[in-house]
Amino acid sequence: MSMNPYMRDHAFYLPIRVYYEDTDAGGIVYHSNYLNFCERARTEWLRHLGNGRDWLREEFGLIFVVRRATIDWRKPARLDDLLLVETRMTKLGKVRMHMQQTISREGVTLATVEIELVCIDHAKFAPVELPESLLAHLPPLPRDLTR
Amino acid sequence: MSMNPYMRDHAFYLPIRVYYEDTDAGGIVYHSNYLNFCERARTEWLRHLGNGRDWLREEFGLIFVVRRATIDWRKPARLDDLLLVETRMTKLGKVRMHMQQTISREGVTLATVEIELVCIDHAKFAPVELPESLLAHLPPLPRDLTR
Amino acid sequence: MSMNPYMRDHAFYLPIRVYYEDTDAGGIVYHSNYLNFCERARTEWLRHLGNGRDWLREEFGLIFVVRRATIDWRKPARLDDLLLVETRMTKLGKVRMHMQQTISREGVTLATVEIELVCIDHAKFAPVELPESLLAHLPPLPRDLTR
Amino acid sequence: MSMNPYMRDHAFYLPIRVYYEDTDAGGIVYHSNYLNFCERARTEWLRHLGNGRDWLREEFGLIFVVRRATIDWRKPARLDDLLLVETRMTKLGKVRMHMQQTISREGVTLATVEIELVCIDHAKFAPVELPESLLAHLPPLPRDLTR
Repeated sequence: MSMNPYMRDHAFYLPIRVYYEDTDAGGIVYHSNYLNFCERARTEWLRHLGNGRDWLREEFGLIFVVRRATIDWRKPARLDDLLLVETRMTKLGKVRMHMQQTISREGVTLATVEIELVCIDHAKFAPVELPESLLAHLPPLPRDLTR
Repeated sequence: MSMNPYMRDHAFYLPIRVYYEDTDAGGIVYHSNYLNFCERARTEWLRHLGNGRDWLREEFGLIFVVRRATIDWRKPARLDDLLLVETRMTKLGKVRMHMQQTISREGVTLATVEIELVCIDHAKFAPVELPESLLAHLPPLPRDLTR
Repeated sequence: MSMNPYMRDHAFYLPIRVYYEDTDAGGIVYHSNYLNFCERARTEWLRHLGNGRDWLREEFGLIFVVRRATIDWRKPARLDDLLLVETRMTKLGKVRMHMQQTISREGVTLATVEIELVCIDHAKFAPVELPESLLAHLPPLPRDLTR
Repeated sequence: MSMNPYMRDHAFYLPIRVYYEDTDAGGIVYHSNYLNFCERARTEWLRHLGNGRDWLREEFGLIFVVRRATIDWRKPARLDDLLLVETRMTKLGKVRMHMQQTISREGVTLATVEIELVCIDHAKFAPVELPESLLAHLPPLPRDLTR
């Protein structure tokens, strides 16, 4: 499997290798690190759309902050595993974005993460509406779009 | 405020100081580190009950693994903050334990975490019933006990 | 042993408990985390002197950055260990401060760290001389003071 | 620049992207994370030689542990930087391996790390001689080979 990210059916796929720093004395990936992997994947997804966080911050003065997450840990990931993080936007509101992320190893789901992000004005640290010019860069959404 | 943990009304309180390692370039505590703080608090809670994880592992061959969590990040924690993590058992099943944890700063709630833990046989890495002799060491539960 | 920090013979002592997040799949504390423990100890040392980093930053616009370190890992620390970090200033230059830090468990040295810090003007991110009014707050130095 | 690792002149090069989790409230990469980047690079170097840590552990019962490191932090790395870690073996003893690692961004050196690793019998956690059959897989060394 290549280590390079790719897009397929409007979902974004990022391979991530597990290193010692990711594991704990239980011999498995430390539970909160799945959120780190997901954040890496969302970052690369934005970059893959052609415009990274720099662009968001410099062009619009915006950042996305994580407001809420639900994580299901189903099976443990281990040292040296090559994981695949699938990232998919599921809902887009005026100031909020919902994403579903899945971490798998060779086709087996290890964890699923539901994330709610809020668009924040970086200077005021207050929620702000997603600008139309940003929306144009986002991938198409599934049917349940509620905006 | 003291840095020492304490128990009050069947909830356990652990003060945690925020260091550089906990923060990110957004100037706030990195979102997944709230889960780390919660895990520290559950560990100290077990130790405070008079028996740490060592005892669980050596006496019963058991460990608790995090199966599911929902996290609400309401306000950011910052460098040098002295946080207080409140830990409370909310439900106790045959193999599962539910906990509610709240992270606050000077009485203001910054984040809430709902955690579901599963009791695992360490050798087989399979779920196992909580032994009666362990239950005797746990604090009383609220009314909604469902065991 | 108490979990509270203390000063003795011009050295500062901070107890640190090892949690799952600090360990790796080798069953021991991940090697770079010793640097995190040392940074926590230097932070608490500054706070113990009566003035934390806030004061440095707000009063003088200064921060200390780590410029160089040599670390000897002698014996592994493990999950649930209660470590003691000893912090001692060994040399004080015009813009630099040298510190020696030792991490031990029940009197046995696990790691030693030699650290060189540089005083930086926070706005310009450039080295700057330590102000006299700050020096007044530092503990006495050993003989080999070279300022 | 590609994200894929490569070998050139007996040195190994691993590109590493900086994410939020790597940074701190100072707006730069947290100092100890450079050691994490170096450990990732040594891991990928072993994998690139055709045999990962699994092979070392399963075939020989060996692991390498970090015994000593000297780190020079020259310039800060920042969020979203694409770093390049250069890894080079500089000396090979009977039980020890010395490596030099450099972290750079667009040709500018940000940090250098000198690492001493010790070959350990995994079961006994005691130093052991590097087996001849392992040495055959290592890249040629510079002149100052001292074995």
